[in-house]
Amino acid sequence: MPTPLTRFKRILFGRPLASDRLEHERLNKKTALAVLSSDAISSVAYATEQTLLVLVVLGAAALNYVVPISAVIVGLLVLVALSYRQTIYAYPSGGGSYTVAKDNLGRMPGLVAAAALLTDYILTVSVSISSGIAAITSAYPRLVPHTVLLCVAAVLLLMVINLRGVRESGIAFSVPTYVFIAIMLALIVTGLARVFAGTVVPRHVVPAVPHGGPLGFAFTFLILRAFAEGCVAMTGTEAISNGVGAFKKPSARNAATTLAWMAATLATFFIGTSILARHYGILPVANETLLSQLGRDVFGGGVLYYVLQYATFALLVLAANTAFADFPRLSSILSRDGYMPRQFSARGDRLAFSNGIIALALFAMLLIWLFHGDTSALIPLYAIGVFVCFTLSQAGMVVHWIRSREPGWRWRAALNGLGAVATALVSIVQVATKFTHGAWIVVLIIPVIILMLRRIHRHYDHFAREVAYNGQAPLMFLHHTVIVPVNGITKPTAGALVYATTISEDVRAVYVEVDPDTSAELRRQWAEWDIGVDLVVLESPYRSILRPLVSYVDELTARGEADLVTVVVPEIVPRSWFGHLLHNKTALFIRTAFVFRPNVVVTAVPYLIGRAVRLRDLMAHDELVEQPSDIPTNSVDAA
Amino acid sequence: MPTPLTRFKRILFGRPLASDRLEHERLNKKTALAVLSSDAISSVAYATEQTLLVLVVLGAAALNYVVPISAVIVGLLVLVALSYRQTIYAYPSGGGSYTVAKDNLGRMPGLVAAAALLTDYILTVSVSISSGIAAITSAYPRLVPHTVLLCVAAVLLLMVINLRGVRESGIAFSVPTYVFIAIMLALIVTGLARVFAGTVVPRHVVPAVPHGGPLGFAFTFLILRAFAEGCVAMTGTEAISNGVGAFKKPSARNAATTLAWMAATLATFFIGTSILARHYGILPVANETLLSQLGRDVFGGGVLYYVLQYATFALLVLAANTAFADFPRLSSILSRDGYMPRQFSARGDRLAFSNGIIALALFAMLLIWLFHGDTSALIPLYAIGVFVCFTLSQAGMVVHWIRSREPGWRWRAALNGLGAVATALVSIVQVATKFTHGAWIVVLIIPVIILMLRRIHRHYDHFAREVAYNGQAPLMFLHHTVIVPVNGITKPTAGALVYATTISEDVRAVYVEVDPDTSAELRRQWAEWDIGVDLVVLESPYRSILRPLVSYVDELTARGEADLVTVVVPEIVPRSWFGHLLHNKTALFIRTAFVFRPNVVVTAVPYLIGRAVRLRDLMAHDELVEQPSDIPTNSVDAA
Repeated sequence: MPTPLTRFKRILFGRPLASDRLEHERLNKKTALAVLSSDAISSVAYATEQTLLVLVVLGAAALNYVVPISAVIVGLLVLVALSYRQTIYAYPSGGGSYTVAKDNLGRMPGLVAAAALLTDYILTVSVSISSGIAAITSAYPRLVPHTVLLCVAAVLLLMVINLRGVRESGIAFSVPTYVFIAIMLALIVTGLARVFAGTVVPRHVVPAVPHGGPLGFAFTFLILRAFAEGCVAMTGTEAISNGVGAFKKPSARNAATTLAWMAATLATFFIGTSILARHYGILPVANETLLSQLGRDVFGGGVLYYVLQYATFALLVLAANTAFADFPRLSSILSRDGYMPRQFSARGDRLAFSNGIIALALFAMLLIWLFHGDTSALIPLYAIGVFVCFTLSQAGMVVHWIRSREPGWRWRAALNGLGAVATALVSIVQVATKFTHGAWIVVLIIPVIILMLRRIHRHYDHFAREVAYNGQAPLMFLHHTVIVPVNGITKPTAGALVYATTISEDVRAVYVEVDPDTSAELRRQWAEWDIGVDLVVLESPYRSILRPLVSYVDELTARGEADLVTVVVPEIVPRSWFGHLLHNKTALFIRTAFVFRPNVVVTAVPYLIGRAVRLRDLMAHDELVEQPSDIPTNSVDAA
Repeated sequence: MPTPLTRFKRILFGRPLASDRLEHERLNKKTALAVLSSDAISSVAYATEQTLLVLVVLGAAALNYVVPISAVIVGLLVLVALSYRQTIYAYPSGGGSYTVAKDNLGRMPGLVAAAALLTDYILTVSVSISSGIAAITSAYPRLVPHTVLLCVAAVLLLMVINLRGVRESGIAFSVPTYVFIAIMLALIVTGLARVFAGTVVPRHVVPAVPHGGPLGFAFTFLILRAFAEGCVAMTGTEAISNGVGAFKKPSARNAATTLAWMAATLATFFIGTSILARHYGILPVANETLLSQLGRDVFGGGVLYYVLQYATFALLVLAANTAFADFPRLSSILSRDGYMPRQFSARGDRLAFSNGIIALALFAMLLIWLFHGDTSALIPLYAIGVFVCFTLSQAGMVVHWIRSREPGWRWRAALNGLGAVATALVSIVQVATKFTHGAWIVVLIIPVIILMLRRIHRHYDHFAREVAYNGQAPLMFLHHTVIVPVNGITKPTAGALVYATTISEDVRAVYVEVDPDTSAELRRQWAEWDIGVDLVVLESPYRSILRPLVSYVDELTARGEADLVTVVVPEIVPRSWFGHLLHNKTALFIRTAFVFRPNVVVTAVPYLIGRAVRLRDLMAHDELVEQPSDIPTNSVDAA
């Protein structure tokens, strides 16, 4: 009989899956490129635009600088890709930044990497979804006012899909990526062909930069900030090195080749978009993405334009989806290492790390809501964590090579070292230039997360030491007294008394007297009932039921009359929410009152309204003696 | 050691009071007039204005009709007062409409009266507070935008004061009433003197009504609706007859005299205000009350004007306060009769009916918030319930006289009958003329409340019949099996096992196997521990902890191995909110899983982090036999 809630869960998330269904599909290079590169390649959708958004204070002259800046970023991308190529060979089972940093640099750098990764996964979802929705609202401007709603709906959809448990189903995931690759190639080739044919009418005419150019501090800062924003193109580069284990054999070799292809694709699209923006004279505008403007100008707004917008949207949703795999996986690793609550380490009914998925969706929706689903407001927070992870991961690799002394360790260490230094510099530029534009939030939050991870670890550590049990045999109580609060002779009270006499020989019924008139009547009825359990009447001048009860139990233990007290409370279990409103939650209050008293146990004996208590046999109280068990106490060992 | 919450409660509400502090102060006529008339007399603050608000579609000609309409209402007031005078003598202990209607007319009329009263008490608070705040914002127009906030603050203040428990402290309550009476007399006398002196310059010149006048349906309807709104002046008239018990002896005689004085005062002030409004040519305006306009014109805006405004405010707060005594009292009577949840029948720490007070405040604040604290939007809902109660109460009195056949019963029954018919007619006029102006809400809500009262009564009725226990001796269980879910050998587990062996001889430790590797290790450790309790290992292919446990218990009972099963769960009690987040709520989940299974009891044995379990003595498991109790099981009867 599944409850309505269970049935609802089944419809939404599907039936539970058995643990042995947790197998791993191995990916060939083509599907791996599609599955693992969506995060990186999708950056094309916003990277050029973010660079120009900074430079736009220079007016159309901004377009002079976008291509050189993009070229520098592509250079950095090549360096980082070469650096990660080495990680692939060194960690063939998958080397996430947390693992690499923890193994080689120690606990604290590992935690910094973990905190940076957690924030970045959340931002991957917020940025990708808001940018994906922007691709749709660019095509249909009437949807602009509903941006936040559409973003939240997309995040919720991803959450539900991931709670159902997605297998990394290569084919379904390949389609959007390859459609996007095809349409982007078409865009760049057509666009450049029209540039060379000289048929382009640029939206803005790009003025020549005055010789010598403006070179003050403000200008340098502006260029650096544009560069920092453009670096968002590199987010997702590490995905392939994290997922080496998913490749077909020879895994490392296949992963390295795929990484090269991914970097080449990303570089081409990014520099291509920047060149087209330069020649078509396109500057960022409100409510339409730069890629959408380019699409309209190059394709003329026909079917190909809509293909571009939908493919961009689909790819960005896939990019967000990668975070839905990565965040819960990292959370479960951190949870098993004792840095996150235990609830994050268990797989749910559908083999997904449900709590991690829900937490990610909640944080991402919070960010989208706070920033009104505005990609360019979210971007300044992004990329910082990514570059911190790049730096830590590559620094870790330097230590790895120095320790391993493998053939060629010197130049390998030098390459990773160069990568580490370059990305460290970029990290500093990121924080320095974007600090007042939102980067301060990340600078504040990463240490807070680290403190939290450490505090959680300390708690579990203390707890494990405290509960460790080394005694050979358990301890034992000498005298067990059972207290049954009664308010009249009713079936629930009788049930509680029966239970009480089953678990101890010292049972006392306790009545808290609020009104002396009714207690005289109860005493009379009790004497007549004559079940061999004494009735204790406690005065309550302040009308409280709990306080006299607590004092009585405290006195019992203080006087040494009992070293273990069980309070047995009849608990009315109504059939409906309506009934719940009409019965005092006495059992709950009594449990709360005693929860901090050692050696006091509160037991609620449920009385189900409308369902008779099933009893095997009836017995008069006179025969109330312990029955010898006629059923042997076997170990029903199912294993 | 009071908890922080307890300390906060003590500061806000004071120390608990003993039950014997519940004494009753008897009132003399002067203080009784002050205490029991505030609700009635304060109606002057809005009654004339409401009449004019309806008529204002006629322009300044409206002022021609306000005095005649007021005169009719005063006539009705005299009739109702005479009628209630008889109730005072017939019910010297206080005859509320619920009691009178239930006793004489039966259950259903009683419930109608109860529902009407409950809505009217809520409206008394909403209307009085919003009208009182209007008196203040009339004097200080800058406060107008904060109306709702001020109203809510006033309701919360009344709630806290009443939760502390107000004694009907005559002197403190008399001051605002007598100040208001004095300033109103001053207003009327000064105002009329200036009228007769001919020095008044009316704000609006009142045009002569054309002979014959407009007499169509629309005009008649308008006049009737103005009358219906003006009837709000009569709310609160019943207060004295409800409170006869509070008067000094001879109670009935004193109460009757006070009622006469109250009716005379109310009539004078109401007709006086209407006459002044007529002669000063005052029409309702936004953001200033009619009484405030009158005050400015008569007193010229000096000190006396501010005295009038503050006295009006204070009296209206007192009027709201009477509902804070009446609503909880009626709720507790209904609760004891089984028509409202039990929680309403108990007096709290400070002898006040806390739940009723809180419920009233919440409903009143909800209404204020929904109607933006606008008195004239709330008024159409008001008075309907009052007139329904007048009618039922007087109809009840007719039956009372017919049954009693006391001397003079005929003319007494006739007088009450006349009152009943008149107020019944007014009730119909109220509903008919104000239906689309909000009265439909009341017409809808009263039956809903009646249905709810009846449903609650049915529930308690069924419950009482179901739990009634008539057997002479309680029943008994034959075989009690205790299950202890374990996940390793730790101190909390050991504590739970000790408890389990204390309450039964058939104890089984159960381990739910999610990962086969760890269970092999646990088996080894368990064998080594050797405490004489079998370890049962249950497979869990779906990783659920609960489902295998529930199935195991179901099997035990289905196979007849046990007729009572107790599941003993170690419950980690963290010291801080932080710790609560980090521990799975296993005990809670297990309790929920079994709550609907008869004959299964779940017991949580608390393990307090950071506090060692206090044990009287240690014992090796080999000696695990029931110890003879060395302490006699006395009845510690404190009564």
